[in-house]
Amino acid sequence: MSGSNNSKTAFQDQHSVEHCYGCGADNSNGLQLKSYWDGAAAIASFTPKKFHCGGSPEIVYGGVLASLIDCHSCNLAIATYYKLEQRPIGSYPRIRCVSAQLNVAFKTATPIGSELKIRAKVRSQEGRKTWVDAEIWAVDVLRVTGEVLLVRIDDIQRPESSPA
Amino acid sequence: MSGSNNSKTAFQDQHSVEHCYGCGADNSNGLQLKSYWDGAAAIASFTPKKFHCGGSPEIVYGGVLASLIDCHSCNLAIATYYKLEQRPIGSYPRIRCVSAQLNVAFKTATPIGSELKIRAKVRSQEGRKTWVDAEIWAVDVLRVTGEVLLVRIDDIQRPESSPA
Repeated sequence: MSGSNNSKTAFQDQHSVEHCYGCGADNSNGLQLKSYWDGAAAIASFTPKKFHCGGSPEIVYGGVLASLIDCHSCNLAIATYYKLEQRPIGSYPRIRCVSAQLNVAFKTATPIGSELKIRAKVRSQEGRKTWVDAEIWAVDVLRVTGEVLLVRIDDIQRPESSPA
Repeated sequence: MSGSNNSKTAFQDQHSVEHCYGCGADNSNGLQLKSYWDGAAAIASFTPKKFHCGGSPEIVYGGVLASLIDCHSCNLAIATYYKLEQRPIGSYPRIRCVSAQLNVAFKTATPIGSELKIRAKVRSQEGRKTWVDAEIWAVDVLRVTGEVLLVRIDDIQRPESSPA
């Protein structure tokens, strides 16, 4: 159900991120990531395509891994603000966040061909700033860790033309 | 000329990075970045496509910006190792680097529709570790800064089947 703050509908499908290269449902060239609540954390899964490789065709490209961490963390920060305000994700005024700092540690190579599990948790949320810790696992091995600073920007009012 | 360490042929075209999502010439789904010497620094330019946007269709997606910094820095680290060894980029044994740490600061939004200028410089290179500082400029404004730790991995010997 659109607009409901539930664990079965992806964050992205509740607050209408149509365009985003990382998680926009309408961006057929993008990664179309979907993030969900898992207790207080957020989870997502992603299976890279063959062309998402790095210098070796066997290994996932670092920039794609960084993108997954970035988008998943951003969506978690937004969802957490909605939760704090006890209102459904996607309700107006819409909450948006942008990344201010993205730190990614590539601990070991991430193989192409397996489903990646992305997990993120809010470390702290103070005012407009949210720090998120994220991990990417493949074949039960921790491959990548990330920390992302998201900044909440001006909330988006309901467009005058849209239904109540 | 293939294999020559010159400033007019992109690093990527000298050491044959065919597959890479960030800079592989044969990866038509990827960014196909090209990096060149500019004195001791390396430069590249990239014009994002419309689908490289973030949550707003006007703004470049952070993960794409992180990818540009990652790939450009990695290619600079590799080129610098070749230079240190006074041999052409792409000569055998081939030098490869992988990213170990990627830190990106998004200082202000990067508009879609303009050519991005990416500039990187080696901060330090000690043994197998190289730290690179990178910047992305758009419309004469510094938009993104990055620091990347690259690690040189086992050099690739000439395949037995390849010509001398």
